[in-house]
Amino acid sequence: MPLSEFELIRRFFSPPAGRADVLLGVGDDCALLAAPAGYALAVSIDTLVEGTHFLRGVDPESLGHKALAVSLSDLAAMGAQPAWATLALTLPDSDDLWLEAFSRGFSGLASAQGVELVGGDITRGPRSVSVQAHGFVKPERALRRRGASPGELIYVTGTLGEAGLALLALQGLYVPPEGFSQAIQRLERPRPRVAEGLALCGLATAAIDISDGLAADLGHILEASDVGATVCVEQIPLARSVRTYLRETGDRNLPLSAGDDYELCITVPADRQSEVERLGSTFDCGLTWIGAIETQRGLRCRLDDGQPMELRSGGFDHFG
Amino acid sequence: MPLSEFELIRRFFSPPAGRADVLLGVGDDCALLAAPAGYALAVSIDTLVEGTHFLRGVDPESLGHKALAVSLSDLAAMGAQPAWATLALTLPDSDDLWLEAFSRGFSGLASAQGVELVGGDITRGPRSVSVQAHGFVKPERALRRRGASPGELIYVTGTLGEAGLALLALQGLYVPPEGFSQAIQRLERPRPRVAEGLALCGLATAAIDISDGLAADLGHILEASDVGATVCVEQIPLARSVRTYLRETGDRNLPLSAGDDYELCITVPADRQSEVERLGSTFDCGLTWIGAIETQRGLRCRLDDGQPMELRSGGFDHFG
Repeated sequence: MPLSEFELIRRFFSPPAGRADVLLGVGDDCALLAAPAGYALAVSIDTLVEGTHFLRGVDPESLGHKALAVSLSDLAAMGAQPAWATLALTLPDSDDLWLEAFSRGFSGLASAQGVELVGGDITRGPRSVSVQAHGFVKPERALRRRGASPGELIYVTGTLGEAGLALLALQGLYVPPEGFSQAIQRLERPRPRVAEGLALCGLATAAIDISDGLAADLGHILEASDVGATVCVEQIPLARSVRTYLRETGDRNLPLSAGDDYELCITVPADRQSEVERLGSTFDCGLTWIGAIETQRGLRCRLDDGQPMELRSGGFDHFG
Repeated sequence: MPLSEFELIRRFFSPPAGRADVLLGVGDDCALLAAPAGYALAVSIDTLVEGTHFLRGVDPESLGHKALAVSLSDLAAMGAQPAWATLALTLPDSDDLWLEAFSRGFSGLASAQGVELVGGDITRGPRSVSVQAHGFVKPERALRRRGASPGELIYVTGTLGEAGLALLALQGLYVPPEGFSQAIQRLERPRPRVAEGLALCGLATAAIDISDGLAADLGHILEASDVGATVCVEQIPLARSVRTYLRETGDRNLPLSAGDDYELCITVPADRQSEVERLGSTFDCGLTWIGAIETQRGLRCRLDDGQPMELRSGGFDHFG
């Protein structure tokens, strides 16, 4: 017998009593939440749709993780401390095993990040997941897109291109070498750079998370800040799998255009270089200099020998 | 040429600068919002899916209105003052005319209720809409589901069953008489009872909005409050179209089981009867006594002559 909508929410998604700032959680018309004084509430909503953002038959536990991760990544890019999440889940049927696994992935990341699920809606239809993440940040310390100035340095956390390479492999467009499972993990279980975003508050002048590719997302910083930039493509930090791919194919475009890495791209004043590099050296994922902000608008890429490199694609755009 | 995701959001959904508590609206990784001190933040997320909640080919302006209305109705049922909304829209294609009409319906209701759209995500896939509404309520005044006590009176705003009757007509299961357009409006353009919910704070002991049918939704109050109730079915306020339908078909079940009316069902202590009825007389939509809370668990329906009436259905449940 299929479970009712209410039972589904109760059974799989009622979190253990947790945060003191959740006055009323799942189960009433609204959740009631107490935001701390002196902080702005940072909110971001993201949807993952089957066939667009994930393949049919995706591991539900990974999907549960990723649906929350992509929204937490937006909080990370604002330098906000995650607190609460809401979940709108649309499913073609009520498959207990699927829901249990999805819930395990979602709840695992939620617990790790101290996030409480406070509300949800489960409906019937083509499979998709929307998650809204809610966090706190002092408004004057929030990392916006529009703070970059000419002369500033550009850094990224972690490595780029590995999630995109995994997608190519899953689509059968790239035959991966042995030991490719880390790349698949990058695609399916992105780790939002929450701690890194918090640490960069007060130091970075602008930030964004790289969900649509470095070129596209850095482009948003440039546009919002009314500046341009040059990226030194050979400085972009790459995982071993992507280095192998580049050696084999010569496709330098992948780390610039591939989405789904959920690393942070930030800008920092040049006179705080040693400070940011000292901080970056404490990040498990690392923090790497890749270029500089310039007055001339637009994004330019160049090789270490000074030669320009042409960008092939502006990044991922569902309606492009 | 199709619009890009970012242009879509900017073009159709960037609201005019409005609320002072929106520190940063659409266009960055997160919105930054300033919740007022001393209030709880009330949040609710709801999804409408094509084929489940609305028919293919539905008027997009009505859908834009309704998607926001159903979430505002949840705020109304908590007695919260609406403030902000986020929108996750999934569309099979980028149809400018469709988006313009959807946005008109959404923005019209948003303006009327003083709500600002602060964030969104537009993705490609089977058509669906998730809206999260955010409002403010003093936590001690919030209308929860669990406050009803034996001896209290049950009231509903407006009239019931008309949206359900319109759905029957649209599905070809009922041939409507002349002048049925008001019923279609009830289904397609529900009016969230925000002002009524606010006015009932401090007077109602429990409240819920009727989205799944009176029996199901009152059932949630009863379950949460650990009480039962008797509803006098002939006292349920009905629009003319539903009275006609009842005369023609004898189906007394419709006003109890049909969803989508988005009226409020509340409970009030018996010694505040004159106070609540005085207040209700100021509501354009009216406020009508329909029954009483009792110690004995479960929901009983009876006719004015005292005869019991059996309920046919527990209300709408997507996974039932």
